[in-house]
Amino acid sequence: MTVPSAPSGFAPGVTMMAQEIAEQPTAVARTLETLMPLRQELRTLAGHRRRVLLVARGSSDNAAVYGRYLLETRSGIPAALSAPSVATHYRSELDLSDTLVVALSQSGGTDEIVATQHWARRCGAATVAITNDEDSPLAKEADIALVTRAGRELAVPATKSYTTQLAALAVLATALAPEPELEDELLRVPGEMAALLETPPQVQQAVDQLAGDGPTLVVGRGLTLATALEVALKLEETCLRPVRGLSYADLRHGPIAMVSADTTAIVISAPDGPLVPGLTTLASDLRQLGTTVIGIGGNSEFRDACEVAIPGPALSEPLAPLGLILPPQLAIEKLARRLGLDPDAPRGLAKVTQTDRV
Amino acid sequence: MTVPSAPSGFAPGVTMMAQEIAEQPTAVARTLETLMPLRQELRTLAGHRRRVLLVARGSSDNAAVYGRYLLETRSGIPAALSAPSVATHYRSELDLSDTLVVALSQSGGTDEIVATQHWARRCGAATVAITNDEDSPLAKEADIALVTRAGRELAVPATKSYTTQLAALAVLATALAPEPELEDELLRVPGEMAALLETPPQVQQAVDQLAGDGPTLVVGRGLTLATALEVALKLEETCLRPVRGLSYADLRHGPIAMVSADTTAIVISAPDGPLVPGLTTLASDLRQLGTTVIGIGGNSEFRDACEVAIPGPALSEPLAPLGLILPPQLAIEKLARRLGLDPDAPRGLAKVTQTDRV
Repeated sequence: MTVPSAPSGFAPGVTMMAQEIAEQPTAVARTLETLMPLRQELRTLAGHRRRVLLVARGSSDNAAVYGRYLLETRSGIPAALSAPSVATHYRSELDLSDTLVVALSQSGGTDEIVATQHWARRCGAATVAITNDEDSPLAKEADIALVTRAGRELAVPATKSYTTQLAALAVLATALAPEPELEDELLRVPGEMAALLETPPQVQQAVDQLAGDGPTLVVGRGLTLATALEVALKLEETCLRPVRGLSYADLRHGPIAMVSADTTAIVISAPDGPLVPGLTTLASDLRQLGTTVIGIGGNSEFRDACEVAIPGPALSEPLAPLGLILPPQLAIEKLARRLGLDPDAPRGLAKVTQTDRV
Repeated sequence: MTVPSAPSGFAPGVTMMAQEIAEQPTAVARTLETLMPLRQELRTLAGHRRRVLLVARGSSDNAAVYGRYLLETRSGIPAALSAPSVATHYRSELDLSDTLVVALSQSGGTDEIVATQHWARRCGAATVAITNDEDSPLAKEADIALVTRAGRELAVPATKSYTTQLAALAVLATALAPEPELEDELLRVPGEMAALLETPPQVQQAVDQLAGDGPTLVVGRGLTLATALEVALKLEETCLRPVRGLSYADLRHGPIAMVSADTTAIVISAPDGPLVPGLTTLASDLRQLGTTVIGIGGNSEFRDACEVAIPGPALSEPLAPLGLILPPQLAIEKLARRLGLDPDAPRGLAKVTQTDRV
């Protein structure tokens, strides 16, 4: 596999977030090289287990949403997201003997995720940890640790740790239900990511639009729902504004009532797959309400329906989320600086998050 | 069981939403009377099936979140929420032969929910429909239909159809894992609901606070997460403002960065259970950030931590969500009118929602 090199020669004063965004092609290539050989071992561990339960929080939880759709739509494996409090606060006893539990945490040190993985083992599950630290409790206590090779991530907002988690989940999906075509395409991901780093002018247009005061919505569906949730979370953490990420089905089912000409909507689409028509119709309908629509990815019809259209990766829907997040990452880092904020250290957040204050 | 009568003598011009909020004690009592006798039949249908998959959208999806926590924390049954697009758009083939699928829709006529229930049967699932219309496709095609007795719901925002769905889910939970104590307590629910309709002065204080311009957050966790999501959705639909509903763990994991003195937070707690301490600490921490905290329910320590404390029902945590939603419903109906909006017919929404525009 060719490992594209990260753009070099950062100007002094460049943010860690910008640097880590740029490292993603290399980080994902390294992660794939490390994890692809573990597929047989993963298959053996899964054995007779018929379902996957994903355990995560924050950006890792958004990666888990991607994993859930990938497993259900491509591998035919029922998958779900856990509710950690069921383990950590209610201490329920569930029979998980037919379940492969996949716990995701960049640091591998968030107490509730470690405790939930521990609980899952006690409930009979086989466990896989996806973490960026091979010495973390999460990695050490799992049956198999898929250690992502993002390198140390210093900026608080997750970027390369998120995309390497997506890569690990794609490896897991192809391990549980082999798909040679998808495996071949995985090797093209780092190159596509590198191409997306050559910031097109539409990213600056998006920043100009998002710098305004109006409410922001981020919409995807199916495999791109994870991207929408991650873009919304990153905007909240980094730019300190409330942003809703949701599927277009949920949007149409109620919250669309509050959309107006003041709203900016970011709509995220793969270039192909069964949800492009629905996302295209949504973009048109939102523009009819006067909403400014920033499209990311999609096909030519989708792009025509958007006011600002940022090109996405040339990757099919199952892998498109590994590229689709890059243009929004670039825009959000710029937007934070434009708003006078430090993207590396958002107000009130620490790199290793604990969800219960002790 | 005593069926408390709804307050009578509405002034002309009262909204349908206000009327339907007031009908909830009767609607829930009727629903319990109808559904409790079906428990043996539900147990037989479930048979060897070891898990529950809930299918819903909108307010019904929030009810499903309650069902998920109730089943996992009280009945020891692994439960999850479906992703309808996996059925309707990706047409995946999943093995659901060990699964009881529970589809929820007030109208029983939302295409994607009917289609997903149909798909679940083809995938081997046993099916239970929870709907307010016994003649709907959803009811007719299910193995067992739990028909809620809300009566016709005319206002677009769901109120009595939501609480009767919660009642149906509580019946299902006690059917799958009998719990005599919970069953006894269920009979007290309509009376507790009726008491909550005697709007305390704090509801008006909450309306005054929410009428301001600042961003609004709604926070719960575990069994009250569903209530938080439903309050947020109702505020969005009815008062046309973007509102985030989330668990305090998710809030602390990132979005708390954007909370400031402008923010109003509605925090929802049961009177007991393992999450009261965490929700109380959260309320204190938010007030330290200058945020105005409106508390609903909780114990005396929780109430002391909140700026405005609206009493909740005297129901233990598993059933508290059937009462906790009432004070926010009352506040939201008043807030919509205060903002010059018609709570019965929010902009751009229809009563039977379709999620894909054809």
